[in-house]
Amino acid sequence: MNILVMHGPNLNLLGTREPGVYGAVTMDEINAALEAYTAEHGAKVRCFQSNHEGGLIDALHEARGWAQGIIINPGGYTHTSVALRDAISAVALPAIEVHLSNVHAREPFRHTSLIAPVCVGQICGLGWIGYRLALEALLAREEG
Amino acid sequence: MNILVMHGPNLNLLGTREPGVYGAVTMDEINAALEAYTAEHGAKVRCFQSNHEGGLIDALHEARGWAQGIIINPGGYTHTSVALRDAISAVALPAIEVHLSNVHAREPFRHTSLIAPVCVGQICGLGWIGYRLALEALLAREEG
Amino acid sequence: MNILVMHGPNLNLLGTREPGVYGAVTMDEINAALEAYTAEHGAKVRCFQSNHEGGLIDALHEARGWAQGIIINPGGYTHTSVALRDAISAVALPAIEVHLSNVHAREPFRHTSLIAPVCVGQICGLGWIGYRLALEALLAREEG
Amino acid sequence: MNILVMHGPNLNLLGTREPGVYGAVTMDEINAALEAYTAEHGAKVRCFQSNHEGGLIDALHEARGWAQGIIINPGGYTHTSVALRDAISAVALPAIEVHLSNVHAREPFRHTSLIAPVCVGQICGLGWIGYRLALEALLAREEG
Amino acid sequence: MNILVMHGPNLNLLGTREPGVYGAVTMDEINAALEAYTAEHGAKVRCFQSNHEGGLIDALHEARGWAQGIIINPGGYTHTSVALRDAISAVALPAIEVHLSNVHAREPFRHTSLIAPVCVGQICGLGWIGYRLALEALLAREEG
Amino acid sequence: MNILVMHGPNLNLLGTREPGVYGAVTMDEINAALEAYTAEHGAKVRCFQSNHEGGLIDALHEARGWAQGIIINPGGYTHTSVALRDAISAVALPAIEVHLSNVHAREPFRHTSLIAPVCVGQICGLGWIGYRLALEALLAREEG
Amino acid sequence: MNILVMHGPNLNLLGTREPGVYGAVTMDEINAALEAYTAEHGAKVRCFQSNHEGGLIDALHEARGWAQGIIINPGGYTHTSVALRDAISAVALPAIEVHLSNVHAREPFRHTSLIAPVCVGQICGLGWIGYRLALEALLAREEG
Amino acid sequence: MNILVMHGPNLNLLGTREPGVYGAVTMDEINAALEAYTAEHGAKVRCFQSNHEGGLIDALHEARGWAQGIIINPGGYTHTSVALRDAISAVALPAIEVHLSNVHAREPFRHTSLIAPVCVGQICGLGWIGYRLALEALLAREEG
Amino acid sequence: MNILVMHGPNLNLLGTREPGVYGAVTMDEINAALEAYTAEHGAKVRCFQSNHEGGLIDALHEARGWAQGIIINPGGYTHTSVALRDAISAVALPAIEVHLSNVHAREPFRHTSLIAPVCVGQICGLGWIGYRLALEALLAREEG
Amino acid sequence: MNILVMHGPNLNLLGTREPGVYGAVTMDEINAALEAYTAEHGAKVRCFQSNHEGGLIDALHEARGWAQGIIINPGGYTHTSVALRDAISAVALPAIEVHLSNVHAREPFRHTSLIAPVCVGQICGLGWIGYRLALEALLAREEG
Amino acid sequence: MNILVMHGPNLNLLGTREPGVYGAVTMDEINAALEAYTAEHGAKVRCFQSNHEGGLIDALHEARGWAQGIIINPGGYTHTSVALRDAISAVALPAIEVHLSNVHAREPFRHTSLIAPVCVGQICGLGWIGYRLALEALLAREEG
Amino acid sequence: MNILVMHGPNLNLLGTREPGVYGAVTMDEINAALEAYTAEHGAKVRCFQSNHEGGLIDALHEARGWAQGIIINPGGYTHTSVALRDAISAVALPAIEVHLSNVHAREPFRHTSLIAPVCVGQICGLGWIGYRLALEALLAREEG
Repeated sequence: MNILVMHGPNLNLLGTREPGVYGAVTMDEINAALEAYTAEHGAKVRCFQSNHEGGLIDALHEARGWAQGIIINPGGYTHTSVALRDAISAVALPAIEVHLSNVHAREPFRHTSLIAPVCVGQICGLGWIGYRLALEALLAREEG
Repeated sequence: MNILVMHGPNLNLLGTREPGVYGAVTMDEINAALEAYTAEHGAKVRCFQSNHEGGLIDALHEARGWAQGIIINPGGYTHTSVALRDAISAVALPAIEVHLSNVHAREPFRHTSLIAPVCVGQICGLGWIGYRLALEALLAREEG
Repeated sequence: MNILVMHGPNLNLLGTREPGVYGAVTMDEINAALEAYTAEHGAKVRCFQSNHEGGLIDALHEARGWAQGIIINPGGYTHTSVALRDAISAVALPAIEVHLSNVHAREPFRHTSLIAPVCVGQICGLGWIGYRLALEALLAREEG
Repeated sequence: MNILVMHGPNLNLLGTREPGVYGAVTMDEINAALEAYTAEHGAKVRCFQSNHEGGLIDALHEARGWAQGIIINPGGYTHTSVALRDAISAVALPAIEVHLSNVHAREPFRHTSLIAPVCVGQICGLGWIGYRLALEALLAREEG
Repeated sequence: MNILVMHGPNLNLLGTREPGVYGAVTMDEINAALEAYTAEHGAKVRCFQSNHEGGLIDALHEARGWAQGIIINPGGYTHTSVALRDAISAVALPAIEVHLSNVHAREPFRHTSLIAPVCVGQICGLGWIGYRLALEALLAREEG
Repeated sequence: MNILVMHGPNLNLLGTREPGVYGAVTMDEINAALEAYTAEHGAKVRCFQSNHEGGLIDALHEARGWAQGIIINPGGYTHTSVALRDAISAVALPAIEVHLSNVHAREPFRHTSLIAPVCVGQICGLGWIGYRLALEALLAREEG
Repeated sequence: MNILVMHGPNLNLLGTREPGVYGAVTMDEINAALEAYTAEHGAKVRCFQSNHEGGLIDALHEARGWAQGIIINPGGYTHTSVALRDAISAVALPAIEVHLSNVHAREPFRHTSLIAPVCVGQICGLGWIGYRLALEALLAREEG
Repeated sequence: MNILVMHGPNLNLLGTREPGVYGAVTMDEINAALEAYTAEHGAKVRCFQSNHEGGLIDALHEARGWAQGIIINPGGYTHTSVALRDAISAVALPAIEVHLSNVHAREPFRHTSLIAPVCVGQICGLGWIGYRLALEALLAREEG
Repeated sequence: MNILVMHGPNLNLLGTREPGVYGAVTMDEINAALEAYTAEHGAKVRCFQSNHEGGLIDALHEARGWAQGIIINPGGYTHTSVALRDAISAVALPAIEVHLSNVHAREPFRHTSLIAPVCVGQICGLGWIGYRLALEALLAREEG
Repeated sequence: MNILVMHGPNLNLLGTREPGVYGAVTMDEINAALEAYTAEHGAKVRCFQSNHEGGLIDALHEARGWAQGIIINPGGYTHTSVALRDAISAVALPAIEVHLSNVHAREPFRHTSLIAPVCVGQICGLGWIGYRLALEALLAREEG
Repeated sequence: MNILVMHGPNLNLLGTREPGVYGAVTMDEINAALEAYTAEHGAKVRCFQSNHEGGLIDALHEARGWAQGIIINPGGYTHTSVALRDAISAVALPAIEVHLSNVHAREPFRHTSLIAPVCVGQICGLGWIGYRLALEALLAREEG
Repeated sequence: MNILVMHGPNLNLLGTREPGVYGAVTMDEINAALEAYTAEHGAKVRCFQSNHEGGLIDALHEARGWAQGIIINPGGYTHTSVALRDAISAVALPAIEVHLSNVHAREPFRHTSLIAPVCVGQICGLGWIGYRLALEALLAREEG
C-alpha cells in the first residue's frame, strides 16, 4: 500500500515552534519513523509539506496515480479550506486527518474541521504518534 | 472584447472528478468550446486554471491591461476568499461568477459567496454551458 | 419543448419601477423577446405574472400537462415561500430561477433562496437577458 | 359538532405529488373518509383547499358562524405565515395542526411551526390517518 | 392630497377579534373617522382591506395614479413579506406603517418589520388613533 | 401486535403534578385505558415508566424481542437526549412520540425534539388521548 | 394632564447635528411648539434634556409626583439601557417613545429598543412632529 | 499500566445495531481483543458498559484507585453530558475519547464534544480498531 | 421546617476533586455542618447525593411528603437537565440552587442554568458556606 | 472589616417600585439592617446609591483606601456595563453581586451578567436578605 | 491644531490598576508627554477624563468650538455606548480611538467597537505611546 | 533592530486600486519612506509582498534569523487565515498589524481579525502613515 503523508502550513517548524503545544519532535524525525514503520509492514510512504493551500491541492492531485491512502495534517487550513476539502473528495482516496494537539481543547475556531467530513476519520491530541496510528488504521483497512 | 476565463481549484480534474456532481466534460473541452464561440463572435478568450488562491489573484492583476471582462469559477475559494474578492474589486472589470453545480442545493457553507457581491451576476447549476451563457452575457453588455 | 415563464410579484411594473435596480425593459418586451426566441428554436413559451403567491402555485399546477420546463423569477417570494418551493418540487419539472438584479449584492435577506435548492440552477444579475439564457439552458438540456 | 378541515398549498396534488413523501391517497379520498367518519359520529365536516394564504384566512373568517373546531394542514405556510397564525387566534376556535409527513425529520426550516403555538396540538408523520385522529381528538374534547 | 389606507390580514375582524389586544373599534368606524378627518382638511382617503398578500400588492400598484401617500397596517405580513416591501419601494410613495398594538412588547418575531425600512416611519401601540396621527404626519409633510 | 408504551421522567406524578398543564388523569389510568383498548383490538401493550435516561434505554433494548411498535413520551429527555435517540434508531422499531401538553406553545427549549426525527411521527397537546391515538396509528400501520 | 418630555443624549445639538438625518429644527423650537400645543389643550408640559443615562433616570423618578404621562426620545440609550427601561417600569406612567429618524432604516443595532416594550407605543421617522403626535395620543388616552 | 475501557449507551448492541454505521463487530469481541493486546504488552484492561450517565460517572469514580488511564466511547453522552465531563476532570487520569463512526460526517449536533476538551485526544471514524490505537497511545505515553 | 439537601454528580468527590476550584471541605463535613445548623434552629435536614439524573428526580419525588424546602447543587445537570427542572416544578416546593464555584466566571456553557428559573433563587461562588446561607434564606422565608 | 454596599439604578425606589417583583422593604431599611448586623460583628458598612453608571464607578474608586470588600446590586447595569466590570477588576477587592429578584426567571437579557465574572460570587432571588447573606459570606472569607 | 484627548472610565487609575494589562505609566504622565509633544509641534492639547458616559458626551459637545481633532480612549464604553458614538458623529471632528491593551486578544465582548466605525481609525495594544502616535496621525492629516 | 514589513494580497496595486478607499500612494513609495525612516533611526527594514497566503508564511519562517520585529498588513487574509496566524505565533516575534482603511467601518466580515490576537497591537484607518507609526512603536518597544 502506498500512502501519501501531507503536512500543512507551519509543520516544517515542528520541534522549534511552541514545543509546549506541539512537542519537541521534528517533522523529519516523524517522516523517518513513518518510513521505517511502513518498510517493516511492506508498504510505502511519501511525505510532503507545504505552507501553500494550492501546493497541498496540487500534491493531492498528483498522488492519484500512486497512492492508495492519505494521511493529512492540514494545520491551519483544517478550519478554513473548502478547496482542500474538495480536493480530498476529488481524489477519492481514503484519508485520515491527524492533529498533534487536541484541537477540541483550544480556541473555538479550531473545533470545527472542514476536512474531517470527507475523511475516513480523525486522530488528534496524541502527538506525533497520531501519524503512526493513522498508518496502522489505513493498513488495517486494506487488510480488513 | 477580450475575456479572461478563470478556473479555480480542482477544476483541472473536471470530467474525472465526481462526474455525478460536476459532469463528464473536461476543462480543456470547455475551454475549446469557449474559444470557438468567441472566435465566431469577434471576441477573444484566455483560459487560466490554478489551485492557488494567490495564483488566481496574480492572474487577475495581470489581466488588467488585456481583458475587458472576467468569467470566474472560484471553486472552493468562492466561500472563503476575501483576498480574491478584493482582487476582483481592484481590477474593476465586469465579472460573472459561474458554478457547474447548483451550490444552493448542496452543503450550507456553499450557499454563501464572498465573490458574487463584487460581480455583475452569478450563474450556477447549468453545467459547462453556464460558462458559455456568461460569455453571451458579457458580450451583450458590451453591445448593450 | 414547452416552457412556462413565471414572473412573480411586482415584475409587472418592470421598466417603470426603480430602473436603476431593475433596468428599463418592460415585462411585455421581455415576453415578446422570449416568444421570438423560442419560435426560432422550435419551442413554445407561455408567460404568466402574478403578485399572488397562491396564483403562482395555481399556475405551476396547471402547467403540469403542458410544460416540460419552467423559468421562474419568484421576486420577493424567493426568500419567504416554502409553499412555492413545494409546488416546484411537486410538479417535478426542471426549473431555472432567474433574477434581474444581483441578489447577492443587496440586503442580506436576499442572499438566501428557498426556491433555488429545488431548481436546476440559478441566474442572477444579468438583467432581462438572464431569462433568455435560462431558455437556452433548458433547450440545451433537452438536446443534451 | 361542526368541523372545518383546511388543506393548504399543494395538498390538492396529494396522491400524485412525491408519493414517497406524502403517500398515495388523494385529497378527495381523505375528505370522503372524514365525512363518513363524522357522519357515523353525529358530527359534520366541511373540507376546503386553497393554495392562497389569503384564501385560507378568508375561509377561517367565514367559518366563525358554523364551525366549532378546525383541522388544518397549513402545508408550506406552516413555517412562514404570521397572518394565518393571527387568523386562527382571531377566530378563537380549537384547532389541530396536521402534517402527513414527519416534518421534524425533514429540512430544518420545517422543524418550526408558526401555527402550532396557537393550536390545541399537532399531529405529524402518520399519513392521512392523522386527519382522522385529529377528528377523534376534537370530538373527544367536546364530550370531555 | 390623496391617501390610500391599507388594512392587512385579519383587520376586517377588528372590534370582534381579541379586543384585549386590538381594541373595540371596528375597521369601518376607523375608516369613517379617517374620511371625516381628511374631508375637514381638504384631503381624500381611500380605504382597502385584504387578507391576501397579493391583493395588497395589486392595490398598491393601482394606487400609483391616484394616491400621493400611503398608510399601511400590514398585519401579519409585516414580518414576512419581502414582496409587499418591494411593492412599496416600487410605487415610490411616502408610506407610514401603523400597528394598533405595541408590536415591540409582543412575541420576538413581531419585533422586526420588513416593511418599516422602506417607509417614512412607523407608529405603533396607540390604538386606532395611530391611523389618524399618520394622516396628520402625511399632511404635514405635504405642507412642510 | 405488541406495543411498548414508555413514560419518561416525572410522568409517574401525572394527575398530581401541575394539573393545569398536564391534566388530572393519572398514569395508571392511562395505562389501564391503553390495555383495555389493545385487548379489544387483538393487540398487547406493556407500560413502563422511568425517571432514568439509562432506564428508558435499557427498556428499549429489552423490548427488541417482544415489541413491534413503540409509543414514547420522553418528557424532559425529549430535548436533551442523544442517547435515547440513538436507542430508538438502534432497536429499529416504529415509534410514535407523544406529549400531553402542546410543547410548541411552551418555552423555546421545548420546541425542538431530538427524538422526533427518528420516530414515525409525533402527537402533542391532545392530553392523555394522544396515547390512544398513537396506538390507533400503530395498529393502522400494521394493517396498512 | 401633566406631561414630561425627555430628550436623551445629543438631542441638545438638534438643528446643528447631521441635519440630513435629524432635520433642521432645534430642541428649543420643539419644546416651544409642545408648550404651545399643550397650553391650547389645557395640559402642561415640562421638557428635560440630559446626556447622562443616570440624569434621565433621576428626572423620571422626580416626575412621579407631577406627571401623568411621559414622552421620551432616549437617543442612543434606546438600544443599550436596561436601567432606563427599569426606571420607566418603576414610575408606572404611560410613556411613548419617539424617534426623529426612522430607526428601522438605519444600522441593525438601532432596530431593537429596550425601552419600547415598557412603553405604550412608539413613533419614529416623522421628524419633530412625532413629539406632537405623541402628545395628542397621550391626551386622547386621558379623554378615552 | 491499568486501563479502564468505558462503553457508553447503546454500545452493548454493537454488531446488531445499524451495522452500516457502526460495523459488525460486537462489544465482547472488541473487549476480548483489547484484553489480548494489553496482556501481550504487560498491561491490564477492564471493560465496562452502561446506558446510564450516572453509571458511567460511578464507574469513573471507582476507577481512581486502580486505573492509570481511560479509554471512553461516551456514545450519545458525548454531546450532552457536562456531568461526565466533570467526572473525567475530577478523576484526573489521562483519557482518550473514541468513536467508531466519523462523528464529523454525521448530524451537526454530533460535531461538538463536551468530553474531548478534558481528554488527551480523540480518535474517530476508524471502527473498532480505534480502541486499540487508543490503547497504544496510552501505553506510549507511559513509556514516554 | 424540613429541608432536603441534594448534591448532584461528582460532589461526592468534594475535598479530593480539583480543590483549587471546589475547595478542600468534604461533602460529609458540609452535611454535618448543615445538620448542626438546622438542629440549632429547630429545623431538620436530609442530605442526598447521586451521580444519576434519574436518581435525583426520584429523590425529589420522594421528598414531597416530608420536605418543605429544597437546597440543590445540580452539578453538571444544571446546564443540561430539563427533566430535573420539570421535577422541581412538579414537587412545587421552594428550592434554592447552590454552586460552590462562581459558574459565571467559568466556561460559557456553565453560564446558563436550566434549573434556576424554577427555583426561588441562586447562590454561587461562595464555597460550602453557600449551602448554609441557602438554609438561612429558606428558614427566613418560613418565618417571613 | 470595612464593606461598601452599592445600590445601582432605581434601587432608591425600593418598597414603592413594583413590590410584586422587588418586595416591600425600602432601601433605607435594608441599609439600617446591614449596619446593625455589621455593628454586632465588629465590622463596618457604608451604603451608597446612584442611578449613574459613572457615579458607581467613582464610588468604587474612592472605596479603595477604606473598604476590604464590596457588595453590589448593579441593577440594570448588570447586563450592560463593561465600565463597571472594569472598575471592580481595577479596585481588586472581593465583591459579591446581589439581586433581589431571581434574574434567571425573568427576561432573557437579564440572564447574563457582565459583572458576575469579576466577582467572588452571586446571590439572587432571595429578597433583601440576600444582602445580609453576602455580608456573612464576606465576613466568613476574612475569618476563613 | 487643537486636539481634545479624552480618557474614559477607569483610566484615572492608570499606573495603579492591573499594571500587567495596562502598564505602569499614570494618566498624568501620559497627559504631560502629550502636552510636551504638541508644544514642540505648534499644536495644543486638552486632556479630559470622566467615568461618566454623559460626561464624555458633554465634553465632546463643548469641544466643538475649540478642537479640530479628537483622541479618545473610550474604555469600557467602547463596546456598549451608542450615545457616545452618536456624539462623535454629531461633532463631526476627526477622531482616533486608542486602547492601551490589545483588545482583540482579550474577551470576545472587547473585540467589537461601537465607536471605531465613526472614527478615522483605531490604534490598540501599543501602550501609552499609542496616544502619541494618534497625535502624529492627526497632525499629519492636517498637513497632508 | 531589523524589521520585516509584509504586504498581503492586492497591496501591490496600491495607488491604482480604489484610491477612494486605499489612498494614492504606491507600495514602492511606502517602502521607500519606511527605509528612509529606519535608516535615520539606526534600524533596518526589509519589505515583502505576496498575493499567496503560503508565500507570506514562507517569508515569515525565513525572517526568523534576521528580523526582531514584524509589521504586517495581511489584506484579505486578515479575516480568513488561521495558517498565517499560526505562522506569526510560531516565529514568536513582536508583530503589529496595519490596515490602510478603517476596517471597522466596512463590511461586517472585515470587523474580525484572526491575526490581531497574536500581534502586539493593531493600527488601522490612518493610511500609509500607519506603517510608519508601527515602526515607531516597534523601535520604542526595543528602547523601552
